Amino acid sequence: MGVIQQLFSPSVQHALDVAGIFVFAISGALLAVRKNFDVFGIAVLAEVTALGGGLLRDVIIGAVPPAAFTDLGYFLTPLFAALLVFFLHPEVERIQAGVNVFDAAGLGLFCVTGTVKAYDHGLGLTASAALGLATAVGGGVLRDVLANEVPSLLRWDRDLYAVPAIVGSALVVLCIREDALNPFTSGLAVVTAFVLRLLAMRFHWRAPRAWHRRSTARDEESAG
Amino acid sequence: MGVIQQLFSPSVQHALDVAGIFVFAISGALLAVRKNFDVFGIAVLAEVTALGGGLLRDVIIGAVPPAAFTDLGYFLTPLFAALLVFFLHPEVERIQAGVNVFDAAGLGLFCVTGTVKAYDHGLGLTASAALGLATAVGGGVLRDVLANEVPSLLRWDRDLYAVPAIVGSALVVLCIREDALNPFTSGLAVVTAFVLRLLAMRFHWRAPRAWHRRSTARDEESAG
Amino acid sequence: MGVIQQLFSPSVQHALDVAGIFVFAISGALLAVRKNFDVFGIAVLAEVTALGGGLLRDVIIGAVPPAAFTDLGYFLTPLFAALLVFFLHPEVERIQAGVNVFDAAGLGLFCVTGTVKAYDHGLGLTASAALGLATAVGGGVLRDVLANEVPSLLRWDRDLYAVPAIVGSALVVLCIREDALNPFTSGLAVVTAFVLRLLAMRFHWRAPRAWHRRSTARDEESAG
Repeated sequence: MGVIQQLFSPSVQHALDVAGIFVFAISGALLAVRKNFDVFGIAVLAEVTALGGGLLRDVIIGAVPPAAFTDLGYFLTPLFAALLVFFLHPEVERIQAGVNVFDAAGLGLFCVTGTVKAYDHGLGLTASAALGLATAVGGGVLRDVLANEVPSLLRWDRDLYAVPAIVGSALVVLCIREDALNPFTSGLAVVTAFVLRLLAMRFHWRAPRAWHRRSTARDEESAG
Repeated sequence: MGVIQQLFSPSVQHALDVAGIFVFAISGALLAVRKNFDVFGIAVLAEVTALGGGLLRDVIIGAVPPAAFTDLGYFLTPLFAALLVFFLHPEVERIQAGVNVFDAAGLGLFCVTGTVKAYDHGLGLTASAALGLATAVGGGVLRDVLANEVPSLLRWDRDLYAVPAIVGSALVVLCIREDALNPFTSGLAVVTAFVLRLLAMRFHWRAPRAWHRRSTARDEESAG
Repeated sequence: MGVIQQLFSPSVQHALDVAGIFVFAISGALLAVRKNFDVFGIAVLAEVTALGGGLLRDVIIGAVPPAAFTDLGYFLTPLFAALLVFFLHPEVERIQAGVNVFDAAGLGLFCVTGTVKAYDHGLGLTASAALGLATAVGGGVLRDVLANEVPSLLRWDRDLYAVPAIVGSALVVLCIREDALNPFTSGLAVVTAFVLRLLAMRFHWRAPRAWHRRSTARDEESAG
């Protein structure tokens, strides 16, 4: 845990975590409303989206029970977000742009703290970066699987989502290797991932699909 | 493990667990038949439905290898249920009402034992209740995800399922806080959750969806 | 770990593992291309398919961090497979028959090594065989869930996939009980599972569905 606590003061770290959890929970709750789920479905999807990535990371590195179950604030924040969406969802959808900005912030934050926590638990540099990426995107994938949709992470017709997190995780790993990880450099990694995601949304950056694709009609259909 | 063993004698506890596993396995096997799966698909879905919730709980609290893999009876019971459904499924479907009653009993039982086991492994009260709920409903969610359906837990057009389990888990947590957990009070929690679920099915209690929903047509479609 | 290292020399074992990971990754990457995923979706599906089964096994037996995150070769192999498919997928699809043969080899290998590793970590014989099966088929199930399809493991209209792995795992467990597990017998188990799968594909062996099925029309539809 040492490195994490050196990065930010514990209270700052906790506030950042809660902020990331909150915005991810909003995205889960909004999808639940769109899928016509009831109030408990909204709460479940908010919890899973917000805490799923960290839960996956903690189970994989053996940090059990996971932080999601030991910190009451982590658990209650998604419930609060679900309530908010339940009563105010037309307003929340209207400020979707704002939600997207916060989600981008959550993405940047989680890929950095996920990478650091994985490294602290003894993983190698590449594995730490991979697990940081999994922390950042895992909740969203679980959200889409539970909602019975193709994870938007995997779809070609969505703006780049994984790449900003990969860049953020890679920067952290570089800093660790150069022994240059400190609040400033890790903050820089967060901001880089955040800004890259904002740019991807603004300019609709997309990743290429496989070369020489054929039988397109069938694929369009099945990707529906 | 202390608390669990104080609640019921180990053999009574084991018999109750096996009963809960059996009825959950029946529900998984029946869905597999409806989805046109072969005999192995039926067995897999029976195993996952019956053991998935407890497996999730044990991995999260670090109780590995999970009970599902250390107790042969837990493993063989779903196979027996799958065989039964394979040969007798028209009869089993005809007694669907009976299956639902047993499933309600399993729900009540699993939310209580799940909460107690989580608390025994050092989780806080709220987290224990949350994990008890996850134990009770996790298998069904995995079942629906593997069958490529929207989890019935999340759908608004199904009778209340989470609420009875939440009430049961909350009662256990209250008893723990008041230092009043004993076979009688925990049995009372099981029965309360069980009866609530029966009432929800009898009177088709449903949870509200988000307020002021608009664009309903599109949602009905996508929730299909 | 003792038993595994007695079976094959570590470098032979590692080479076999990497070969199995590679062919499973190819199958994941090909499905991603068919589902119209972008290059990152292809990489993610390759990783999940190749490493998912072993990850599941390691988390369940408490061998964390899992081998997938401690061995760089295990992590990089699926990325290499994804790149190959990205640039050459028409050629790879043309040699689908070859891919199927390798996939069968991976199935045979993973069910044997999974069973042995589970037994080494203290599981009973039946549980070890079950976890060996889960190791062999888990990655493919995760692949299909992420691609939002009914797992081909469960579908009746696919050639037998689970049975060869069950036979391989059962042979290993028999050898352990008879104290006859050695490189030769375990190699025999791998080959048996491998050949059974090849025969199942060649002769389109399928498993029976539930007896006396009715309301077939509705099922065909929902099984789409």
